[in-house]
Amino acid sequence: MKSWLFVLLLAAFAAVTFYPAGNLHGEDESSRAAVIAVLTDQQAAWNRADVEAFMQGYWNSPDVMFVGASGITRGWQPVMDRYRKSYPDAKAMGHLDFSQLEVRPLGKEAALVLGRFHLKRDADEMGGVFTLVFQRFPEGWKIICDHTSADAKKP
Amino acid sequence: MKSWLFVLLLAAFAAVTFYPAGNLHGEDESSRAAVIAVLTDQQAAWNRADVEAFMQGYWNSPDVMFVGASGITRGWQPVMDRYRKSYPDAKAMGHLDFSQLEVRPLGKEAALVLGRFHLKRDADEMGGVFTLVFQRFPEGWKIICDHTSADAKKP
Repeated sequence: MKSWLFVLLLAAFAAVTFYPAGNLHGEDESSRAAVIAVLTDQQAAWNRADVEAFMQGYWNSPDVMFVGASGITRGWQPVMDRYRKSYPDAKAMGHLDFSQLEVRPLGKEAALVLGRFHLKRDADEMGGVFTLVFQRFPEGWKIICDHTSADAKKP
Repeated sequence: MKSWLFVLLLAAFAAVTFYPAGNLHGEDESSRAAVIAVLTDQQAAWNRADVEAFMQGYWNSPDVMFVGASGITRGWQPVMDRYRKSYPDAKAMGHLDFSQLEVRPLGKEAALVLGRFHLKRDADEMGGVFTLVFQRFPEGWKIICDHTSADAKKP
C-alpha cells in the first residue's frame, strides 16, 4: 500500500475514533443549557398561568409519565388534565420557583435533572423535590418522566 | 483512485454507519435483562435481610442519590445508613416484592425503570412507586438515582 494512503486511512480512523470523546464535554454543556432552558420556559409559563405552554416541556406522547404520592399519570393529555384539576386558576397556581437544579447527562440523548420546587400562593406555601428524565427528540429536549415528591408536612 | 479501493472504503463506511442502528434492538434487550437481574438480586438480598448485598445494586459513589418525601440522601454510605436506620433488623425489613417493572432504555449506557414495591411485615404493610435511573459502568448496571414515593396513606 502506498504510504500516503496508509497515512490517509490512519487519519480517517483517528478522526472517527477520537472525535466523540473529544467533543463530549461541549455536548454535555449544550445539553445542560437546553434542559435548563426548558425548565426556565416552564417556570415562566406557570407564572403567567399558561398550563398549555407549561406542558410544552413534556414529551407529547401517551408514554410520558408523571409520578407522585398519588400514583402514576400516563400520557400528555392526562398529565395536563391533572394539572388543570389540581391548579384550576391563576390563584391556585400561585408563583412557582425552581431551584438547586442539577443536570446529569446520560449519554448524548438523555439527561437526569434533580431540583426543588417552591410554590407560593396567597393562602399557603408548598415545596418539594423532583427528578426529571429528559430525552432529546427532533423537536427538542422533553421531559419523559417527572417524579415529584412534596415535602413531608410537619404536623 | 483505484475502484477496488473505493469499494473497500465504501464498505468500511457502511459498516461503521449502519451497525449501531441494526444492533439497537438486541442491545436494548440485553440492557433490559441486565437491569431486571439487578432488581431481582436486590429483592433476594432484602428478603434475607442482607442490606450490604442489597446495596450492591447502587452505584458505589458519593454522587448516588436516594430521593423521597424526607428529602435527598446523597452518597453510597449515607444511603446504606438510611436503610439500616429505617429497617434495623429482619423483622423491620419484612418481605419485599417488586412488581409492574417497566424498563425504558436511554441510549446504550442508561435506562429508566418504573416499578412498584410492596413490603409485608408482621405489624403492617406498605407500598409505593419508584423511578430508578440506571447507568452502565465497567462493573455493571447500577442505580445512580432512586426516587421512591410511598402510597398516600388513607386516613
